[in-house]
Amino acid sequence: MREERRAGWARWGTPEHAKPLPEAVAGLLKQVFEVTPPAAPAALDAVAAPAELAADTLAALAAVVGAEHVDTAAAERALHASGKSTPDLFHQRAGELPALPAAVVAPADHDQVLAVLAVCAAHRLAVVPFGGGTSVVGGLSPETGGHITLDLRRLDRLVAVDPVSRTAVLQAGLPAPRADELLAAHGFTLGHVPQSYEYATIGGFAATRSSGQASAGYGRFDDMVVGMTVATPRGTLTTGRAPASSAGPDLRRLFLGSEGAFGVITDVTVRVRPLAAQRRYEGWRFPSFVDGVAAARRLAQDGPRPTVLRLSDEVETMLGATGRGRGDGGCLLVVGHEGASVDRVAAETADVLRECGGESLGTEPGEQWAAHRFDAPYLRDALLDAGAFAETLETAAFWSALPGLYEAVREALFAALPVPSMVLCHVSHVYETGASLYFTVVTAFGDEPVARWQRAKAAANDAIIAAGGTISHHHGVGTEHRDWFAQEVGPLGVDVLRAVKRELDPAGVLNPGILVAPRPAP
Amino acid sequence: MREERRAGWARWGTPEHAKPLPEAVAGLLKQVFEVTPPAAPAALDAVAAPAELAADTLAALAAVVGAEHVDTAAAERALHASGKSTPDLFHQRAGELPALPAAVVAPADHDQVLAVLAVCAAHRLAVVPFGGGTSVVGGLSPETGGHITLDLRRLDRLVAVDPVSRTAVLQAGLPAPRADELLAAHGFTLGHVPQSYEYATIGGFAATRSSGQASAGYGRFDDMVVGMTVATPRGTLTTGRAPASSAGPDLRRLFLGSEGAFGVITDVTVRVRPLAAQRRYEGWRFPSFVDGVAAARRLAQDGPRPTVLRLSDEVETMLGATGRGRGDGGCLLVVGHEGASVDRVAAETADVLRECGGESLGTEPGEQWAAHRFDAPYLRDALLDAGAFAETLETAAFWSALPGLYEAVREALFAALPVPSMVLCHVSHVYETGASLYFTVVTAFGDEPVARWQRAKAAANDAIIAAGGTISHHHGVGTEHRDWFAQEVGPLGVDVLRAVKRELDPAGVLNPGILVAPRPAP
Repeated sequence: MREERRAGWARWGTPEHAKPLPEAVAGLLKQVFEVTPPAAPAALDAVAAPAELAADTLAALAAVVGAEHVDTAAAERALHASGKSTPDLFHQRAGELPALPAAVVAPADHDQVLAVLAVCAAHRLAVVPFGGGTSVVGGLSPETGGHITLDLRRLDRLVAVDPVSRTAVLQAGLPAPRADELLAAHGFTLGHVPQSYEYATIGGFAATRSSGQASAGYGRFDDMVVGMTVATPRGTLTTGRAPASSAGPDLRRLFLGSEGAFGVITDVTVRVRPLAAQRRYEGWRFPSFVDGVAAARRLAQDGPRPTVLRLSDEVETMLGATGRGRGDGGCLLVVGHEGASVDRVAAETADVLRECGGESLGTEPGEQWAAHRFDAPYLRDALLDAGAFAETLETAAFWSALPGLYEAVREALFAALPVPSMVLCHVSHVYETGASLYFTVVTAFGDEPVARWQRAKAAANDAIIAAGGTISHHHGVGTEHRDWFAQEVGPLGVDVLRAVKRELDPAGVLNPGILVAPRPAP
Repeated sequence: MREERRAGWARWGTPEHAKPLPEAVAGLLKQVFEVTPPAAPAALDAVAAPAELAADTLAALAAVVGAEHVDTAAAERALHASGKSTPDLFHQRAGELPALPAAVVAPADHDQVLAVLAVCAAHRLAVVPFGGGTSVVGGLSPETGGHITLDLRRLDRLVAVDPVSRTAVLQAGLPAPRADELLAAHGFTLGHVPQSYEYATIGGFAATRSSGQASAGYGRFDDMVVGMTVATPRGTLTTGRAPASSAGPDLRRLFLGSEGAFGVITDVTVRVRPLAAQRRYEGWRFPSFVDGVAAARRLAQDGPRPTVLRLSDEVETMLGATGRGRGDGGCLLVVGHEGASVDRVAAETADVLRECGGESLGTEPGEQWAAHRFDAPYLRDALLDAGAFAETLETAAFWSALPGLYEAVREALFAALPVPSMVLCHVSHVYETGASLYFTVVTAFGDEPVARWQRAKAAANDAIIAAGGTISHHHGVGTEHRDWFAQEVGPLGVDVLRAVKRELDPAGVLNPGILVAPRPAP
């Protein structure tokens, strides 16, 4: 994993996984967007990172985890300085990292995490938990730098499997593919497959309330977590003695989504499912996005419920953004079934989709989607190499608010972006009462791509809040969504979160500036 | 409702709904338990309740809600002094109420609730939110008395229905049957049918994390709530812009289960479902409780998932506690199906149950159960009238912990109760990873029935915590479970809840002593 991270410097993934741009897209970029390839990214080893931590602090950290697990090398610090948002990649490509950690500390277990937090509290040293490093919302980038990164990579064990209860205890630093590999040996799977799957970790899924591509069938990560162990500067907190309880507020839900601001999740107990015996992915065409949304709603509310349900709007379908589109108009709905009686559920689903005006495209577009399900962020690398800026944003709302939200976000983006720009959208997570919307924006670099994007993103965020959506369905808050999150939960909601943080982290060292802004001095 | 409450003084329900004891039970009580009918309950109007509130406080409250909605009559205060646990009924029957409110205040709307809370904070006057008054865990009984009861009965509107999103906004004081009646006019139902259904309110369901008899099909009330408005002494907090979000911790889950200690829930936005087109309730016999639990687990984990799933242990089955048992041994499993394709799901379920060793008893035992689904607490009234003490307690755990938990609680109860006593149990809420256990205890009054019960309950609670169960699956914490709840969440969990309370309720007036003990003076 460490070599992989090094190879993935200033990109999403490692070069051997790189995806070339489809020729049509490359042509479009040159002809319509008139992009030109930018300068090559700065080399990782060129990033300057002068020593920062006092010797006694370093010694205290080394006393906990061993000197070999306190890394102050410039490259290691640069690799942990930020996540994988497009602005992050721009900073990395420029070799300019706004918030460089002073050291990367890798504890071996929960007790070492507790002890590292104690050192940080005593030294008033900010500490940023780090799993897969895939945040796209500035979740790893406190505003100041000079902090330590708490790299959870050594907490990588499957601790226990309970086949009767169908639960497993997974350590926070386990990468998702490794977790599934370990579970598969027991006949189980998580069924949690977000686009970040190849790199993200179990702890990160919990800390950010992740949702995977198969959320219609397996639920959100929220729904999978039945217990957690959290290390805080005040000690250990464990939650989850039963699947459900009326013993007070569900404290699991206070740490799900806490993004390292309340504590460090060191292990989670998750509900697991038997490995799917069969899988079937299909494509369906709907005359319009509105028709497709109506069909998705019908399935979400009345069933049958597929495992995967993903509807591209007209533009995304046309561009075949991930290689699976067709040139004959309408909107593509990918429908995936996994489980024991796939054929029957697929047949029942097909009846409903036909009733809703859908036309079957067979399994090929579905299998294409499945084969390329992790490609989009690699394509972003290729776009960046070609000189095109690509970024995503997402939200969710109740069904009745969805059409207005869709229009409002598109309008806000187009108003703030130069001509030509492209805005693609899909629905990929459905619930009985609503769904998510996921937007992809492609535009030329221009002179100040990051600043221009920040203006467009701010306009889109304003539109989301005004149209009644949530500021994030599965990316999280981090620093980038913080101001809009404050609008979403209101000043009293922010005060409550601050009160929790103050109680668990009196010194304010845990991922400062994430989730809530530091309280202004009275 | 107010007349109904008056008629239900010192009992669960009104006398016209009273259920006579089955003859077999009445005979058993006389012959085995040797009970004798106790003295008749004290009359409501005999309860002494001297005036307590200062004139300026009363005036301030009257200024908010109108003098006619501030009731200081003794009977009204007595009716709001406690809930419906058996110890509560004993106090009521004795005419001795440990914590009598000084007034019952009935605001008209959210703004009046806010204003009442402001008066209470300014006057350092404790305030106990009151919905249906059905708490069985001391949730309405702060330790001191002299508080005001905030009766939510006037917040009784269906505010809005969104048929596209399948959500509805319900005010907190709506009794459940009235909510369903209002929703039925739009073709919808909540599907939330706890045993307290006839009296409980929407706000109470949310504040206590209620779970209904049809939770296998409709989910817990937790799962239904997609939004909430909460009045606190610091102002209003609204949550829920989407079915799901990754925008920080889910604040809805902080108020679900907050039991009036953090604020007063004034309305909830709930997911609703179409009225069930068909219903079918069946009975199945399993050779043993262990076999029945295995079958319930199989359905919960692999489906098909019935709407109702309720398994009585051997003793509960034998006693036919609610009139539906049969004398031929084993354990009764009630399986209910509601929805559009009941016959098919029933047939598929039957295949699984037969494979698991179940024997179909046809629909009669199921229909019997459905016809008597609310009877148990009325039977408790009849038992009390006959001189027998009856009380319930419940827990939940992961499947693998369930057998040990079942044995441990039974052992603890039998060790603490006199001979003869009866302990009945059923599983009535199932999840993929675990299930609930609901125990019913019947014993003779003895000299000090309440004190003896408190010792037995404490022993059972200790056993629950030691065996890994949660201290309550759907009754809540109140005052009665508070010490064990503190063990369940640990000192840091308690500190977090206290921090939230301190932030929202700096004067500490909201339902004091509920959920967490007041912090000892430093």
